[in-house]
Amino acid sequence: MLSTGIRNARNVVHYLFGMGAIADLSTILDGRRINISDSVIFFIDSFFEHHNLLEGFNAITSGDQIIYVNTIEEPTTSFINFMRDKVFDASAKQPCAIVGIGGGITMDVAKAVSNLLTNGGNAEDYQGWDLVKKPGIFKVAVPTISGTGAESTRTCVMTNTANGLKLGMNSDFTVFDQIILDPDLTQTVPRDQYFYTGMDAYIHCMESLNGQYRNAIGDAYSTQTIQLCRDLFMGGDMMSDENRAKLMVASYLGGCAIATSYVGVLHPFSAGLSVVLGLHHGVANCITMRAMEEFYPDGYREFYRMAESQNVRLPEGICRNLTDAQLKQLYASTIIHEKPLTNALGECYKDILTPGKVKELFLRM
Amino acid sequence: MLSTGIRNARNVVHYLFGMGAIADLSTILDGRRINISDSVIFFIDSFFEHHNLLEGFNAITSGDQIIYVNTIEEPTTSFINFMRDKVFDASAKQPCAIVGIGGGITMDVAKAVSNLLTNGGNAEDYQGWDLVKKPGIFKVAVPTISGTGAESTRTCVMTNTANGLKLGMNSDFTVFDQIILDPDLTQTVPRDQYFYTGMDAYIHCMESLNGQYRNAIGDAYSTQTIQLCRDLFMGGDMMSDENRAKLMVASYLGGCAIATSYVGVLHPFSAGLSVVLGLHHGVANCITMRAMEEFYPDGYREFYRMAESQNVRLPEGICRNLTDAQLKQLYASTIIHEKPLTNALGECYKDILTPGKVKELFLRM
Repeated sequence: MLSTGIRNARNVVHYLFGMGAIADLSTILDGRRINISDSVIFFIDSFFEHHNLLEGFNAITSGDQIIYVNTIEEPTTSFINFMRDKVFDASAKQPCAIVGIGGGITMDVAKAVSNLLTNGGNAEDYQGWDLVKKPGIFKVAVPTISGTGAESTRTCVMTNTANGLKLGMNSDFTVFDQIILDPDLTQTVPRDQYFYTGMDAYIHCMESLNGQYRNAIGDAYSTQTIQLCRDLFMGGDMMSDENRAKLMVASYLGGCAIATSYVGVLHPFSAGLSVVLGLHHGVANCITMRAMEEFYPDGYREFYRMAESQNVRLPEGICRNLTDAQLKQLYASTIIHEKPLTNALGECYKDILTPGKVKELFLRM
Repeated sequence: MLSTGIRNARNVVHYLFGMGAIADLSTILDGRRINISDSVIFFIDSFFEHHNLLEGFNAITSGDQIIYVNTIEEPTTSFINFMRDKVFDASAKQPCAIVGIGGGITMDVAKAVSNLLTNGGNAEDYQGWDLVKKPGIFKVAVPTISGTGAESTRTCVMTNTANGLKLGMNSDFTVFDQIILDPDLTQTVPRDQYFYTGMDAYIHCMESLNGQYRNAIGDAYSTQTIQLCRDLFMGGDMMSDENRAKLMVASYLGGCAIATSYVGVLHPFSAGLSVVLGLHHGVANCITMRAMEEFYPDGYREFYRMAESQNVRLPEGICRNLTDAQLKQLYASTIIHEKPLTNALGECYKDILTPGKVKELFLRM
């Protein structure tokens, strides 16, 4: 542990920003292709299976492998291991680069497989903090939806297939070597999903600024992220060229913000919804907001003003017909998130979040 | 050149922030000391020669070398070569790390020597863009004054001893691998100097936001830097614990801002003052501001409000008794900065900045 109590934050090494920046992916990969046999693995969100994002850009050469990633469910450790095996099956030689093109899930798959290829073992062996021992394969992210911050964070989230634990490979080696932030790529995102995912950046920064573990650099990243979200979600169409660029920047900076800070009450409840009901992270956050007024009154009000301003429909009644077993499971998978709950409510957070209180909050969603 | 026209920005790899963070320098260096013979070179601002910053922190071991850097004058290429020779004279073996503890000059010396040790040749061989071919020695910055952004930029500024050209080693390899941002270290800075250097962050971001080459990520960094400067220079004592922390963050983010953008009119004039009159960069910026009202009316007014709020004395009459030869030299060393002047005034900037106009502006300082 460092003497300041603040993490020694690891940045993405290179970031390339701009409309049309994906055209430079080929140049970046060419810099890694030293020998003729060097190949690249592309993990691409299956949304793009019939809409070739890379057409005309010469990024893919004959020995490369494209693996489409089904993003209907959040990734499990078995899924990550399966993806790694696909890479192994295609070639005995390590790839010279791994590229993740998609949202949080696809980027997380690229991060995890990159680490597994050089470190050996299975995904579940590295769930936790600083268990990865060696740098992974050179990895590149090209986000096609903004908000999660997966492009800039040191984790890749996955649910353990055996015990249901949702926990990432938290490691400096998980951070991307290169990211390409091309706002043209988020044009095709459905509006609701654009909002749900985008609000992840707003929400984790809002939680961070309301927490007890704060520092001036984390605060600066969070403040700027929130300001960008305000500008773009309150000012005209959130999906205009200018606003898509702003959200892409907010997502990146929001990821930087949590490098030295923690989330709060909302993310643990949202994680509960994802684990028990299989909801995607972005929409689960937005659903959780329904019960957050008492913890984050200002953020709560601003969130609904943004949703109204963009005319976005927010799901309701998700927890109306839950069984007792499900509620019990929801309590367990929420309360397990000790760090963020302590950040928000102090060490005695369980005195505030009693099983009864947690149930009441879920029923409000 | 990339297709977006925006640079593929290179980040500092690790940043550690917090009051007292310098205590962790030893742990960070221990991670680089693999063999018993591995040594570290410390470049330390000579201000600290009789005030041992590292006392009690075990960062220095017996084989290490401390080189105090005289910061009375801005560095020249001969000075950098001389510093490199000092390292060579002390040991035939390459150091395992180079640490720069001080302000912009000391950090720039650390950057330049790190590159020269692995690339060979002299400092003047690398003045320009992307001339450095190999990564330098692992390098660490510990800023003890905030504002220049040297801790986060890809250049190290030096004046060519032979031809007077002020130009840095612009390279991704110039970027630090690790920086330690410890706001405790800026407690001893004289108030005027604290303001002059601090305003560098404000000024380069203000210029960037008023330029023609802009993009959403550069804008976000600039906006947050300016907001932090406003908060700290307008709100109470600029040197309170909280405000020193904010300025250290603003300096880092300001350096990030110019990774994808350019400065404007002020920096070229300021560079002229440094080259011809030998003024330090921070104070030269503040002097130049006297003539900038027509280019940056809002920034100009805000700058003087900040100076007034902090009761800082700004030098005046510096150019009162200049000779014609000096004025001619000032014109030449200002107008040479094509990129920033084009950013601010367009390609025909020489039609606006005629020799007569430039003289008039210098005389206003």
